Amino acid sequence: MAGRTLYIGPFVHCISLKELEICESGAIGVDADGKIDFIDRDIVAEGFSKPGWEDAKQVRISGNGFFFPGFIDTHTHAPQFPNAGLFGSTTLLSWLTTYTFPTESRFSSLPFARRVYTRVISRLLSHGTTCAAYYATMHVPATNLLASLCYERGQRAFVGRVCMDRMTPDYYRDESAARGIHDSRASVEFIHALDPAGELVRAIVTPRFAPSCTAEAMTGLAALSDEFDTAIQTHVSENRDEVEMVKSLFPDEKHYVGAYDSVGLLTDRTVLAHAIWLSEEERTLIRTRGAKVAHCPCSNTCLTSGTAKVRTLLDDGIEVGLGTDVSGGYSGSMLEEVRQAILVSRHVAMEEGDKAKLSFEEGLWLATRGGAQVLRLQDKVGGFEVGMEWDAQMIDLGAVREDGELEGGDSLIDIYGEEKWTDRVAKWVYTGDDRNTHAVWVKGRLVHAKPGVSI
Amino acid sequence: MAGRTLYIGPFVHCISLKELEICESGAIGVDADGKIDFIDRDIVAEGFSKPGWEDAKQVRISGNGFFFPGFIDTHTHAPQFPNAGLFGSTTLLSWLTTYTFPTESRFSSLPFARRVYTRVISRLLSHGTTCAAYYATMHVPATNLLASLCYERGQRAFVGRVCMDRMTPDYYRDESAARGIHDSRASVEFIHALDPAGELVRAIVTPRFAPSCTAEAMTGLAALSDEFDTAIQTHVSENRDEVEMVKSLFPDEKHYVGAYDSVGLLTDRTVLAHAIWLSEEERTLIRTRGAKVAHCPCSNTCLTSGTAKVRTLLDDGIEVGLGTDVSGGYSGSMLEEVRQAILVSRHVAMEEGDKAKLSFEEGLWLATRGGAQVLRLQDKVGGFEVGMEWDAQMIDLGAVREDGELEGGDSLIDIYGEEKWTDRVAKWVYTGDDRNTHAVWVKGRLVHAKPGVSI
Repeated sequence: MAGRTLYIGPFVHCISLKELEICESGAIGVDADGKIDFIDRDIVAEGFSKPGWEDAKQVRISGNGFFFPGFIDTHTHAPQFPNAGLFGSTTLLSWLTTYTFPTESRFSSLPFARRVYTRVISRLLSHGTTCAAYYATMHVPATNLLASLCYERGQRAFVGRVCMDRMTPDYYRDESAARGIHDSRASVEFIHALDPAGELVRAIVTPRFAPSCTAEAMTGLAALSDEFDTAIQTHVSENRDEVEMVKSLFPDEKHYVGAYDSVGLLTDRTVLAHAIWLSEEERTLIRTRGAKVAHCPCSNTCLTSGTAKVRTLLDDGIEVGLGTDVSGGYSGSMLEEVRQAILVSRHVAMEEGDKAKLSFEEGLWLATRGGAQVLRLQDKVGGFEVGMEWDAQMIDLGAVREDGELEGGDSLIDIYGEEKWTDRVAKWVYTGDDRNTHAVWVKGRLVHAKPGVSI
Repeated sequence: MAGRTLYIGPFVHCISLKELEICESGAIGVDADGKIDFIDRDIVAEGFSKPGWEDAKQVRISGNGFFFPGFIDTHTHAPQFPNAGLFGSTTLLSWLTTYTFPTESRFSSLPFARRVYTRVISRLLSHGTTCAAYYATMHVPATNLLASLCYERGQRAFVGRVCMDRMTPDYYRDESAARGIHDSRASVEFIHALDPAGELVRAIVTPRFAPSCTAEAMTGLAALSDEFDTAIQTHVSENRDEVEMVKSLFPDEKHYVGAYDSVGLLTDRTVLAHAIWLSEEERTLIRTRGAKVAHCPCSNTCLTSGTAKVRTLLDDGIEVGLGTDVSGGYSGSMLEEVRQAILVSRHVAMEEGDKAKLSFEEGLWLATRGGAQVLRLQDKVGGFEVGMEWDAQMIDLGAVREDGELEGGDSLIDIYGEEKWTDRVAKWVYTGDDRNTHAVWVKGRLVHAKPGVSI
């Protein structure tokens, strides 16, 4: 019975794109394998006990707070975190050569990789990100180290060695398509040996994007992905110059999405980041293949790439999650990314009308259930259901005392005590940060606790 | 000689719209009145001494950090802070009736006002905001309390009783123009008695906006402002429905700005918030009168109001600062507002070209020097110059240790140690928050220290 835990207190999760379930008094039993065994609603928290669970550990919400599913970051670049906030006035292609390639090339050094990747994982866990789809670099040892560190620290992750055999600088390019495929295979095999059932860490085949991959490389990567049944991640239609470049590099393709489709990379296991400048025909092809989209609003604005039309994608039946896309985006926080998704949706609404606006509930859905769909984990994580795994965060909102100072100390949220529950969640979304994330679990394992918080 | 202080270490401030001065090893002497007496550059910090200043207190930057001028928030609503993050899908006019008027009307209660205003001042000081232009409510006692609290806590502030004699609900409206002017005068007189020289806290005449003020009320407020030589603050051209409403309420006026001009409210002491939907003729009139603009990008996006064309305003020679505009905006942090200004400028650039983009240096300029111009304090605060007052914040950036964990603890900034100084400042702008603001001074007085930091 060791390791069974009762989580007692309010919990909140998304039950549809537009709807939260807010349970003010709940108890969730998690078994020793990290699976949700039962969910009781409307309990009396004081002295709560459950037959057969008398010996389970209890974790209780005290004060203003709730349990919430862990965030799922469907697109970020672990090696680019040292550049967070550094992009100046560049756009995609100048940003790659000025900031990104020089930094990524440094991951030939394992000590440097260990330092950065340790920081990145700690950072994302502290933000409540229980699952991330990571781009690493072209370096096999550093990529494998990232996978190992995720596994040790207990973060659910998809880790991809980045493949690119053209366009990027001499100092940072696969020497041939064959070599790139060979190295990607080495990393896929390492990760499969690390976690054979893929319970926590999985390989993800990662052609950087069509401009930097020959058709030969992409075809080989598609075969590699099929052989190991891995997910695939790449970028699509982020920037208008990039779209033009793909047109000239793939003159026989009808469009950018077609360039992936004709080499076998457009599958229901494929995560396409950005998807800003898509035609209706491209969206139809994405939906037909069952490919998914990682929406990265902060990055898209910082690099002046454009605005992705999320409402249109959703209405088309395409599955969408959110990605922090560091260092195109400057923040590793998915809560910040939810805000950015809402803000960008308002800029779309200024052009296309109110229907484009995303609510905070929809932002949270994209960051949890949507992300789970994108990574095909929707039966495992993203919400609280019996049989799903306990990937969760404990949120504390704090309180404003009668004298106007903060109870508990350091939160940016001001809860005056009269707020409706939905307003409390809205305040968290708009004004909260990692200081409100007091503890984080993946598959039932405590993977982060805020300093000073004991669980 | 008591109270004289030497500030030793790196300092950073804006010396033009596009240019920072970064002094890596400086010493700034501040006299007992809070005025900068001297600035030495290229000193040897170790054992630094200055003839005649041997007995002065020393405040030193340790680790990665710098002194930076305090932020100037040119537009925010103190009573709306309890609503931060609550706006749903409303736009300006529905937001006012749903969220804003009901909350502001509660400031008839002084205990409630004390609780909220104490929180607001603590919050803004912790964000490094040394000066704020506050809208209060229609209530004289609560408005005067806000002024008193700012004065006691040492925050530089402009405090305005909000005047409105039409459009707002029965429960929250001046019963007549004459009564509104009378009450506003009472508050102006109180604040003048509190701080006769206006060294720290000043009254600001505050007609809410043209739709909620009759011409009679506005004419009376203009006279009140002239009599006491106060600044004036109001809103202009935030939302298209509002612009239409002004057209129908003031059929004889050529445009929105004209409605203020013809009652004498458009002066060189006037701060106009938003200024999104202005015609060229309106901009010309603003410049001719010397009126200023408070740009509130977070609010403008949240309420789907539109995008202010800051580059155009600046190129036209209009003085511009930033405003957090809580609770149209959700954050009281000016550092966040700098980010939002940069993000919004990129959305403008998507339509109008790269020239519209604001750099982080320009964002910082708007938040310091620009704000000082807007409030006509440019000879007093906003930068570090001999004869100016010490309104400053001490920024600590922290560091990433070799093992990948953070030195010092709780910062969102990752400094790896190889960053150029401009990149350090960029990282602060994009990834920093109040945790990096270790101490804040106004006029030489320590008004905030982060818990655990001793000065």
